[in-house]
Amino acid sequence: MQPWELSLTEAAAAIEARDLSPVELTESVLARAATVQTATNAFVTVTSDLARKAASTAEREIAEGRHRGPLHGIPFAVKDLFDTAGVASTSSSRVRADHVPDDDAVMVARMRDAGMVMIGKTHTHEFAYGGLTPESRNPWDTSRIPGGSSGGSGAAVAGGACTVATGSDTAGSIRIPASFCGTVGFKPTYGRASRRGVASLSWSLDHVGPLTRNVTDAALVMDVVAGFDRRDPATVDVPVPSHAAGIDDGIDGLRVGVPTNWFFDHVEPAVEQAVRRAIGVLEDRGATLVDVTIPHADEIISAEWAILLPEASAYHRQDLRAKGELYTDDVRLLLEVGELVLATDYITALRVRTLMQQAWAAMFADIDVLAAPCMVMRAPAVGQADVTWPDGHTEDITTAIVRLTSAGNLTGLPTLSLPVGVDDDGLPLGMQLMGRPFDDPTVLRAGRAYEVASDTVGRIAPL
Amino acid sequence: MQPWELSLTEAAAAIEARDLSPVELTESVLARAATVQTATNAFVTVTSDLARKAASTAEREIAEGRHRGPLHGIPFAVKDLFDTAGVASTSSSRVRADHVPDDDAVMVARMRDAGMVMIGKTHTHEFAYGGLTPESRNPWDTSRIPGGSSGGSGAAVAGGACTVATGSDTAGSIRIPASFCGTVGFKPTYGRASRRGVASLSWSLDHVGPLTRNVTDAALVMDVVAGFDRRDPATVDVPVPSHAAGIDDGIDGLRVGVPTNWFFDHVEPAVEQAVRRAIGVLEDRGATLVDVTIPHADEIISAEWAILLPEASAYHRQDLRAKGELYTDDVRLLLEVGELVLATDYITALRVRTLMQQAWAAMFADIDVLAAPCMVMRAPAVGQADVTWPDGHTEDITTAIVRLTSAGNLTGLPTLSLPVGVDDDGLPLGMQLMGRPFDDPTVLRAGRAYEVASDTVGRIAPL
Repeated sequence: MQPWELSLTEAAAAIEARDLSPVELTESVLARAATVQTATNAFVTVTSDLARKAASTAEREIAEGRHRGPLHGIPFAVKDLFDTAGVASTSSSRVRADHVPDDDAVMVARMRDAGMVMIGKTHTHEFAYGGLTPESRNPWDTSRIPGGSSGGSGAAVAGGACTVATGSDTAGSIRIPASFCGTVGFKPTYGRASRRGVASLSWSLDHVGPLTRNVTDAALVMDVVAGFDRRDPATVDVPVPSHAAGIDDGIDGLRVGVPTNWFFDHVEPAVEQAVRRAIGVLEDRGATLVDVTIPHADEIISAEWAILLPEASAYHRQDLRAKGELYTDDVRLLLEVGELVLATDYITALRVRTLMQQAWAAMFADIDVLAAPCMVMRAPAVGQADVTWPDGHTEDITTAIVRLTSAGNLTGLPTLSLPVGVDDDGLPLGMQLMGRPFDDPTVLRAGRAYEVASDTVGRIAPL
Repeated sequence: MQPWELSLTEAAAAIEARDLSPVELTESVLARAATVQTATNAFVTVTSDLARKAASTAEREIAEGRHRGPLHGIPFAVKDLFDTAGVASTSSSRVRADHVPDDDAVMVARMRDAGMVMIGKTHTHEFAYGGLTPESRNPWDTSRIPGGSSGGSGAAVAGGACTVATGSDTAGSIRIPASFCGTVGFKPTYGRASRRGVASLSWSLDHVGPLTRNVTDAALVMDVVAGFDRRDPATVDVPVPSHAAGIDDGIDGLRVGVPTNWFFDHVEPAVEQAVRRAIGVLEDRGATLVDVTIPHADEIISAEWAILLPEASAYHRQDLRAKGELYTDDVRLLLEVGELVLATDYITALRVRTLMQQAWAAMFADIDVLAAPCMVMRAPAVGQADVTWPDGHTEDITTAIVRLTSAGNLTGLPTLSLPVGVDDDGLPLGMQLMGRPFDDPTVLRAGRAYEVASDTVGRIAPL
């Protein structure tokens, strides 16, 4: 087994035992990253020199007895939407081609402070405004998209170029590539991790979180990146529980909600089968299944867009006027549409969101975790514009991609996407587990209980 | 001295000492209310029968030794924007002519639970959307407006029809009539008191609070109405300090900020003189004066309107379509204008507000309370459309009226308006005292320190 094949947890154990050095691991990872890059173009930049330097520093510190913890010396990749000090942070857009920030985004800074080694920047759908990430390819089938907007991160982790990559999620942008590429993706509770230094798409829906190879790895990252930041007003100054500490405690007696409406509508049969099988695994592990009705289901998509569109346009307002021609056509069109949204529509959507949050809170009185499909389908082919369902309903691909993930952004609830199998062509399929506000550890613990009982998590695409 | 002339505090003491009965007090107040009503039309309805019944109940309870506290048996009036169970709550609008709610608004319910006796509903500028209250007159000069939107409450308290009336304040609607009519008006911190059951004007700027004859009376009311309400998401579930307990502790060493910009621009000389004299009284009582610069001053009015206009239009959206002809022309026009505001403008204003709140918090690092004029002028004449300043600048009356109060709504800071004297024609002039978030007691204590050292608070218009 090559070092790059180790999960974060495995690599951390090997480093702590002095069986593996950060330099050795980083060299192995960089070699694999080159292979992944050739196949998928996951990266905007591979920062090999910086990575080697950081790995040497980590190696020296650990040799000197200053081991910072399980992330020390572990390579990771950063979505290009995140600022990285001294390294171009373009958001995969010509608009920011020259943007070289002085400081790391808070999430990146916290991971580096924990001793992690950045190996490069991954592609995002331009400014996170889309679910395709057209620059990159899916490592399981390079004729298919990796999903987005954190598509480069999904492709990098799934291909074995790193065990961890950062992502952001406004309508599903962590969970979409996680599902299509077969990685774990975790969108924490809204306000749990600081978004400072990350280009905003929609400030009241934006979240940051990790894409990882397994659930424990995600918990270890969350333990480092969760917490209050005075300069991100969404974050909350409350104590942060450990995400990793109780992760192996199992789910005996956990009440798992299974939606009786909406989440299984217009979903590919392979997805439904894989998710129901995974829910069965949770039951086998001691969970109690509870049927639940999703409230306000018909308003989820309209509320999501009525909030996202104008918030994005407000953020990009000056750039759209000063250098509008540098945006790609699809993003420019969305930004222009967002300028037409009336304030009354936006305010009405905010009210719907509040009602939705209250109704979901009531639903969670009877359950601890909700289990549901993540994507309605396997990864689409490059260029696929829409999907036609057996009843004849045709849905454009962007709507299909965010249809089941947006609820997590509107409610702000912690949501894990994890791979629960593959379809007949070997393409990954994902399940979502959602929890109560700031009860992120329970969601991760449920995901972990699934992963130890199955063989669908942690697979690397053979490139 | 007649019972109606007693302040709340005085009447409460007399009731507790069994020198005054709630029935006797209520009859005296109802008689005075009739005089005030003839002169000012402060009331939509005087609910004499209900008041007599409530007074009898209070009298019996107190006679039986079940004295609930200082508000027990005290008459009060309710702005017609507030729901009152079984009593028409019209918001002074033909749109709600038939609205007879089943429940009291939370503020009203809390005051009644404390034993207070409702004597009637007071006029508001239609749906609180204006500063004039055209139905009512100022008791100090009935050719002048009482201000608004809580104009009936201001006229009622100033005329002696009650010691307490409820008000709501979105751009100044408690403080405007308090200033013009010479009463105390208190807008607590945003989220300190529940707005449930009060017709919304602009949900992110709306506050409720009392108009009273003096500061201690306001504190006694706040002790009853402050607190969390699960069903008003703006309220905060944190402990509520007593507002009345330390109110007489004085202000030795209190740092009082005096604005060096903006608040004294385009202000009538009599207002400036009265306010500076009042600030001198605070200094005499031991306060330290600190010059401060108001941040983002030039953005206050535009941010206030960009938030208020569309929030009001969103709230009235359905009624405007279903029965738009029932609104008065001025309110209908504002509601129509609000439907043209773009979401991006609204969102930009929300961001300006956040920056403003942060900058004000920084300013309050050096001070405990800010002192400033409340109205830029004395009460305008009925029909006065604008005001021309000595430099030739002409300002429409609505902008002039809310110019200095809107900052309290945008920042959400607790703000007291108290009478600090009269102009040459005997018309009241007001000062604002603002404090830190949820530090409402300090603001009231500063106001109380002023009122015990002066003779400008507590006067009743001679009708």
